[in-house]
Amino acid sequence: MDSQSSVRQFLERGYLTYRTNVSIDCAIFGYHSGELKLLLVKNKVITKWCLPGGFVKKVETLDAAAARITAERTGIENLFMKQFKTFGDQGRNKTDAFDVKKLYELTGLKMKKENWLLGETVTVGFYAISDIVQAKPNADFLSSECQWFPVDQLPKLAFDHNEIAKEALAAMRMQLYHFPIGKNLLPKKFTLKEIKLFYEVMSGKTLHITNFPNKLISIGLIEKTNERMNIGAHRSPTLYKFNEKQYQKALKEGLVLV
Amino acid sequence: MDSQSSVRQFLERGYLTYRTNVSIDCAIFGYHSGELKLLLVKNKVITKWCLPGGFVKKVETLDAAAARITAERTGIENLFMKQFKTFGDQGRNKTDAFDVKKLYELTGLKMKKENWLLGETVTVGFYAISDIVQAKPNADFLSSECQWFPVDQLPKLAFDHNEIAKEALAAMRMQLYHFPIGKNLLPKKFTLKEIKLFYEVMSGKTLHITNFPNKLISIGLIEKTNERMNIGAHRSPTLYKFNEKQYQKALKEGLVLV
Repeated sequence: MDSQSSVRQFLERGYLTYRTNVSIDCAIFGYHSGELKLLLVKNKVITKWCLPGGFVKKVETLDAAAARITAERTGIENLFMKQFKTFGDQGRNKTDAFDVKKLYELTGLKMKKENWLLGETVTVGFYAISDIVQAKPNADFLSSECQWFPVDQLPKLAFDHNEIAKEALAAMRMQLYHFPIGKNLLPKKFTLKEIKLFYEVMSGKTLHITNFPNKLISIGLIEKTNERMNIGAHRSPTLYKFNEKQYQKALKEGLVLV
Repeated sequence: MDSQSSVRQFLERGYLTYRTNVSIDCAIFGYHSGELKLLLVKNKVITKWCLPGGFVKKVETLDAAAARITAERTGIENLFMKQFKTFGDQGRNKTDAFDVKKLYELTGLKMKKENWLLGETVTVGFYAISDIVQAKPNADFLSSECQWFPVDQLPKLAFDHNEIAKEALAAMRMQLYHFPIGKNLLPKKFTLKEIKLFYEVMSGKTLHITNFPNKLISIGLIEKTNERMNIGAHRSPTLYKFNEKQYQKALKEGLVLV
């Protein structure tokens, strides 16, 4: 099936495959060298930047839908995603950002007044934390674009996506006290200064220069290596690494971190 | 409209008023004198204990639906409720606990194979923390019952409600580090031992006898009064109270507590 006819099928008969009143939206945060960004997408029928999102298939779990949609829209696979909140207030998806007329034009179908895509939906919000990687949406004839934006400089988004992004950030920042993060985002070995900066960027808070890293050491999440970073005369801070066993245990059981 | 005909209307034409694929379930935790309980309901057509729940009207917000449903099912009004997670995996509401045949019998209608109540739903989970109060469901001909159960001795619940209850408890226990609680659950003036016990019951964790209360004092959430509790010779612990201004500020802005 070519790309145009698959979109046509989605438009006309999608309600047979997808749940009609439930969608998913994903806030993918990216960290790299002291910067926190959010991944946004845009295509020909949603005319403003928005979170990557889509409908849930009748045969899949919400978690599986979030993973599939993220992979389709951004090309990023195997992200660890966490559900954080569902948005369902009336009128939330009634904005001019969704250009239905254009969608009909592009597919070559005659515009209809009633379409399953036009009903009220509740959307289940997920967030993920990733390295800032090259995001490459599936190239189709709706031609999506992906771009990372600094979390404090987001454009005006489609629908209620500014609110969803704000709540995703708040949820991530709360949960960061209860789940370990940092693997794959920090170098394998890092200084206490680096991990403190990482947590400051993620939490949006200033942390105590010694108390905070000491807490991470005292709960066994990070541990000293025998190596030092050589950054100049008399300056060679010790390198640390995550304790893999404690990290996995904390992922499973949660932790309480301040 | 009598109660039977209103249920009949709900059964036959409810899809005109309610969103058909979205429901709400509420985990209402009750604290009283060192005990943590969960409120469960039962009626003639759902044959096992379950969380109070129901459908969302097309014209109301999710928050408003949660408040309305809780008031209808339990008689408790004005609870502060927090959304925590949405459950939507396939087959989640296909259990023998929902006795559709009986519902038709009770309403005097002829059983039909297709009914809007029988479709897959996602359910949005909310939790609340309350004092253990007398819960009184609206008496109708489905005759609901309400009962408080200790959180660690729940019966086998209908649908996926054991999972929802478990996740509600985990979410409440995480958020308890980030929002102030205790007003209306503790006496107006309390000892440090009382508030420590309260937090231990809520969190399910043993807390340090002095460090924990000192943290509450140092962030300004509680403060000394000039009064002491007289509990015997040489034993008259100081009484504390919540600082109203800090409490309201923390409710609004969140806090980080350990």
